Amino acid sequence: MPMQTQRIQNDSEMQSVLKKGHKGNQSEIRPSDCALRTTNPIRNIVDRLQVPDEHLRRKKLLSLALGDPTAYLNPPDELIQAVENKLVGDKQNSINAFGYPPATGYDVAKAAIATRANHYNHKLFQELEGEGVNAPQQYSKEDVILASGCSGSLDLAIKVLCSATDTILIPKPGFSLYRTISTSLNLDIHEYRLIPELSWEIDLVELERFISTGEKRISAWIINNPSNPCGSVYSLKHLEGISRLALKYNIPLISDEIYEDMTFTPHIYIPMSIVHKGPLITCSGLAKRFLVPGWRIGWMLIHDGYVEEEGKSTTMQQVRKGLVDLAGLILGPNSLIQVALYDIFSNVPPTFYQNINAYLHNNSLLCTKILSDIPGLRVIPPQGTLYLLVSILPHHFPNFKDDVEFCQALLGEELVSCLPGSIFGADGFIRIVFAAPEDVLREALMRLKSFAGRHFQG
Amino acid sequence: MPMQTQRIQNDSEMQSVLKKGHKGNQSEIRPSDCALRTTNPIRNIVDRLQVPDEHLRRKKLLSLALGDPTAYLNPPDELIQAVENKLVGDKQNSINAFGYPPATGYDVAKAAIATRANHYNHKLFQELEGEGVNAPQQYSKEDVILASGCSGSLDLAIKVLCSATDTILIPKPGFSLYRTISTSLNLDIHEYRLIPELSWEIDLVELERFISTGEKRISAWIINNPSNPCGSVYSLKHLEGISRLALKYNIPLISDEIYEDMTFTPHIYIPMSIVHKGPLITCSGLAKRFLVPGWRIGWMLIHDGYVEEEGKSTTMQQVRKGLVDLAGLILGPNSLIQVALYDIFSNVPPTFYQNINAYLHNNSLLCTKILSDIPGLRVIPPQGTLYLLVSILPHHFPNFKDDVEFCQALLGEELVSCLPGSIFGADGFIRIVFAAPEDVLREALMRLKSFAGRHFQG
Repeated sequence: MPMQTQRIQNDSEMQSVLKKGHKGNQSEIRPSDCALRTTNPIRNIVDRLQVPDEHLRRKKLLSLALGDPTAYLNPPDELIQAVENKLVGDKQNSINAFGYPPATGYDVAKAAIATRANHYNHKLFQELEGEGVNAPQQYSKEDVILASGCSGSLDLAIKVLCSATDTILIPKPGFSLYRTISTSLNLDIHEYRLIPELSWEIDLVELERFISTGEKRISAWIINNPSNPCGSVYSLKHLEGISRLALKYNIPLISDEIYEDMTFTPHIYIPMSIVHKGPLITCSGLAKRFLVPGWRIGWMLIHDGYVEEEGKSTTMQQVRKGLVDLAGLILGPNSLIQVALYDIFSNVPPTFYQNINAYLHNNSLLCTKILSDIPGLRVIPPQGTLYLLVSILPHHFPNFKDDVEFCQALLGEELVSCLPGSIFGADGFIRIVFAAPEDVLREALMRLKSFAGRHFQG
Repeated sequence: MPMQTQRIQNDSEMQSVLKKGHKGNQSEIRPSDCALRTTNPIRNIVDRLQVPDEHLRRKKLLSLALGDPTAYLNPPDELIQAVENKLVGDKQNSINAFGYPPATGYDVAKAAIATRANHYNHKLFQELEGEGVNAPQQYSKEDVILASGCSGSLDLAIKVLCSATDTILIPKPGFSLYRTISTSLNLDIHEYRLIPELSWEIDLVELERFISTGEKRISAWIINNPSNPCGSVYSLKHLEGISRLALKYNIPLISDEIYEDMTFTPHIYIPMSIVHKGPLITCSGLAKRFLVPGWRIGWMLIHDGYVEEEGKSTTMQQVRKGLVDLAGLILGPNSLIQVALYDIFSNVPPTFYQNINAYLHNNSLLCTKILSDIPGLRVIPPQGTLYLLVSILPHHFPNFKDDVEFCQALLGEELVSCLPGSIFGADGFIRIVFAAPEDVLREALMRLKSFAGRHFQG
């Protein structure tokens, strides 16, 4: 198929090209405004991070860049078994493993998700008693909507709450998809600041100043806990602060909790739903916890607002109806995995998660130890997930204009790939994924150390 | 979780409710404009088609309503086997069965789809030689984008071509999703007429009148062949007529071919891609042909325009880039099925499709025969798919205001469920799905016959 490479700069040029097209020669079909707005900030930067082939013959490329844990870790056997049982089981009984589920998902899958969340919340509530936490609301299957991955549930959540030109609050640093989705919907994005010195807690004072003086309709506030790329896990106290602010200004929260329970002692995963009394959509999925990100099984839990002491309730009745309508556009995730969900949750033993967390915790300690010893870098120790951010102190590395140049040179000289923090709004940082086995991690960090040593200026 | 049922009528009321909310009492979170626009025309009607429990004790409910073929038909064993092999195979080699594929899909899956399309087109070209068809363009993996079901690929195709307030051409009657997606994007919808007397061919004369006099930017034209709900399969001649009109006005085509190759002798499936020389996006997927609609594996094939004799080319370079960006929003379909796709296409024997087609053809003949004998109804014989439309001649059924009332009464009296044609823009018709086994079909149609006999007025 012949591909032409003509570039169209702007609308009027596009129109003239289109008109010319009618007379012969070449024309170009114009993409929609939405397509033109939707750009992926990662790709432009990653495209600049290429390794020449001759370098690859020198030594092995080591990647600390990929956020896909399945590069090193396998999903649990019980999950594979649960899906296989539904796949090859008696077709008469497992017919719905192949057929259309309802747009929001099978009841059996939604009930499994609600039950799992209730179970965790109830257990956590008992542990936290005495810290002033109220009994958690019980989720029912009506509060669950399945989606094509956690990305799909974030897309739905943002789309149902925010109209074009509304303001949305997203974290900086933060997962780049929040920006991509918001831009595609033509939203006005306000990036709120996370404070590295406070393990990436939100600067709530600055954020309240923005909210209280703003003229704009703020229709959603995204938080991400535990966080990619920060590796932070918020305390009960900090979550309460977030909740107070959201309640005060009646802003619905979207809590991205895809890294739920990937935390390192003494940090624990506290779902926003057991803290917050305002309207809340929690997004999660199988991707990280069960190590099957490619399966695209995500969901959201919907939580109306009710503040008993004030007799004040904020319902999401219309939002729920909107979610059902929007879910009808592409009809949820794979039915085979949906019907296996209950067994997956029931059969995977707690030791599986404990082992993964112990492995990641150990790796995070190794990273923190080695990185702390490298002059000119400053690591913020992660409290969970598989990510951490390292600050590159610019006056010590005058050879590099920014974190992108730093990563480019690191890749070229040492064949170690990391993503520049600027992809995530963390300018001057690099993001390290610590899911690789210890020996790979150690070798990669040693290369980083010798690279930094060569370029450091005291 | 307490659910409130207050209804919000309009924006100003919404604002007042929101303000009141701050002072206590109850407030409601307002959904986005997009969510408010996105409504599913099926649900409102289906909600009115309920059977009281006491009727269900009388006799068995027979459904000719469900478009899900897996209610009666099983997917091929070779497909199950191919997926099982990837699921339980050596984890070291099948790691990408779990991990993130690129947003547009794995290369191996895209290559499998391109090869399959090339193979069909090449074979068909040889059969059609002498009818003035040019050699088909060869698809490469760069021309393929995977999506979450054919619905997901339609959503992407429409979203990449059409900006808010652009005009889109959709068939009437037609699959209701075209309208739902277009409405969600705030497009201006023009429904073009299909002619029942000509086996639901497009009224190209009337359509050209609209296109040529319109002031609007028409950014896409959706065709559906073979068609749900019509059961029609277009001839080469008709496809050439469509192609000429699209070329003349330089309108990109979106061809929904999810029912590809589900045709009954002597009708054959002719992909638009071997007829059309203008820009074209073909949407399809595993759903119908492989009987796994719930797996949500869809794709599109992209085809630039090139008319040799005029030296005129219309590229979709920018559209392709836009598709990659938009695909990044929710990251394609399940990786497990993606990696099995090549084996699925290779291992399922042609007899599987032949048997399904023979089964459906036989059922369609049975339906046509029985329905033709019912006074007051007029059936348009299907040429493929699993659907047909029957016209209810209104002067013979004065008891019923419309097709919805007809279907309601049929359900209440005879416990036979069919969807009213008005769901698909076929007012005065009912849609019958003929995927059920012969005995079920026969029994259901006999009940329809006695129902029609009771209400017929000569």
